[in-house]
Amino acid sequence: MSELDDLHNLLRARPAAGAVNLAGYDPTDTSAQPSRRAADAELADLRHELFEFHGRLLAECSRSVLLVLQGLDCSGKDGTIKHVVIGCNPAGVKVSSFVEPTKEEQDHEFLWRYRRCLPPPGHLGVFNRSYYEDAIVPLACGTEPAEVVDDRIERINEFEADLHGSGTVVVKCFLHLSYDEQRRRFLRRLRRDDKRWKFSEADLQTRRRWNEFQAAYGSVLARTSPDHAPWLVIPADAKWYRNWLVARVLRATLADMNLDYPRIDLDLDRLELLLRAPN
Amino acid sequence: MSELDDLHNLLRARPAAGAVNLAGYDPTDTSAQPSRRAADAELADLRHELFEFHGRLLAECSRSVLLVLQGLDCSGKDGTIKHVVIGCNPAGVKVSSFVEPTKEEQDHEFLWRYRRCLPPPGHLGVFNRSYYEDAIVPLACGTEPAEVVDDRIERINEFEADLHGSGTVVVKCFLHLSYDEQRRRFLRRLRRDDKRWKFSEADLQTRRRWNEFQAAYGSVLARTSPDHAPWLVIPADAKWYRNWLVARVLRATLADMNLDYPRIDLDLDRLELLLRAPN
Repeated sequence: MSELDDLHNLLRARPAAGAVNLAGYDPTDTSAQPSRRAADAELADLRHELFEFHGRLLAECSRSVLLVLQGLDCSGKDGTIKHVVIGCNPAGVKVSSFVEPTKEEQDHEFLWRYRRCLPPPGHLGVFNRSYYEDAIVPLACGTEPAEVVDDRIERINEFEADLHGSGTVVVKCFLHLSYDEQRRRFLRRLRRDDKRWKFSEADLQTRRRWNEFQAAYGSVLARTSPDHAPWLVIPADAKWYRNWLVARVLRATLADMNLDYPRIDLDLDRLELLLRAPN
Repeated sequence: MSELDDLHNLLRARPAAGAVNLAGYDPTDTSAQPSRRAADAELADLRHELFEFHGRLLAECSRSVLLVLQGLDCSGKDGTIKHVVIGCNPAGVKVSSFVEPTKEEQDHEFLWRYRRCLPPPGHLGVFNRSYYEDAIVPLACGTEPAEVVDDRIERINEFEADLHGSGTVVVKCFLHLSYDEQRRRFLRRLRRDDKRWKFSEADLQTRRRWNEFQAAYGSVLARTSPDHAPWLVIPADAKWYRNWLVARVLRATLADMNLDYPRIDLDLDRLELLLRAPN
């Protein structure tokens, strides 16, 4: 069994009766690595290994990886990028953060704006929120008829199948936060001068629909988790555990791709002679 | 005097008689910090400070920084990105590497492809090679009439004035490498399995025109170095010195922008009450 299989066994969303029951997943869990000290030390090594594997991806310049980060406010999407993705060569990373669509984006079909941000060959793309918002939000808030949401879910599955077929490995992490920990993080955000600007009153309205969002995530995760792009549920109350897990998932994903530097045939003796010639 | 003024005094390209005489700049110089050990230790701190300043740029989400890296093959453009830019939050970094233009790009005016890669508000953009290639290469190789090169230089100056006016700070580093150090790096590249794929026979043709390229750079640097976007000549034979200098330049540039987190007025007491309400 590869490390990726192990991680899938540990983290993969398991639907039952058509939905993933998120109440059955403990957001405070740290059982795979209970020592924060050990996790932080390992994270430093993981970042170095990520850098190395990602360098091969970039050199191969053919396949790509797309990391999709979903989760409610304060679940740590930004933090994961800051602490895990920062280990990769910036020349091969493309992060896209999605907020409310513009008028132009709304005029196009819903996947249009995401297609434009896909990682080029050799790149690691990161979606901070994604097309999943277009299914989860209307489902939680009842702002679109069921048929529209159903159609979007079908389109998402086709889109990801297309990505898979064209050489983009899609890695999907749902950062699973508890209601209490969200409160603590909101309060901290409000108190800090360097964080307060991130706060928006609208976040509280989403928080008020906590149960609806848990149910919507549970439904959407269950319906969009094929073997080639399974949903992983990352316990996110402990930031260090979340970082350690996502770094392991990324490292294992890249390791599983059997990446190597391109081999090129060169007449080294002749080239060395040319290089040693005086100017 | 600010740190940025100091660095400009130290590094700014100084034209004489219409050209920058690069022979007068020592690529092996490390005089501003002769201790590699001290430079490496300081680089770690510089990256943390860069992260902090860059976080403010991202929060402000209004102005941008564009780091233009120019230099001959093996001068360390990739290495600078790997060792300096890697300190910034990937969510606010956009690196663009420019190679031979495609047919579509050739059909447009030469600045078209660069405009499309400019950093969005709040971002640090990095150009690994840039529109300067469109002036330097024809000048060194004689592939375009002088009028075409002159016109491009004028267009570049207008373009950068426009960037300056619209809130993008342009930082231009010429990584100044010696002929001998380029040979050593090419030889190392050829010998290493993880580097050989980067080698291209065309690189040797450029190397054969070493003097022409030095002269072309000298001429273009002299003509495109206004106060709002001056050329800095970075001694690049010692990688650690190059990294330390570019990190300092970036940090000083961001410090000079007086960035701060947006202030928003919130009724904290009311929000805390709302947050403490049970689900």
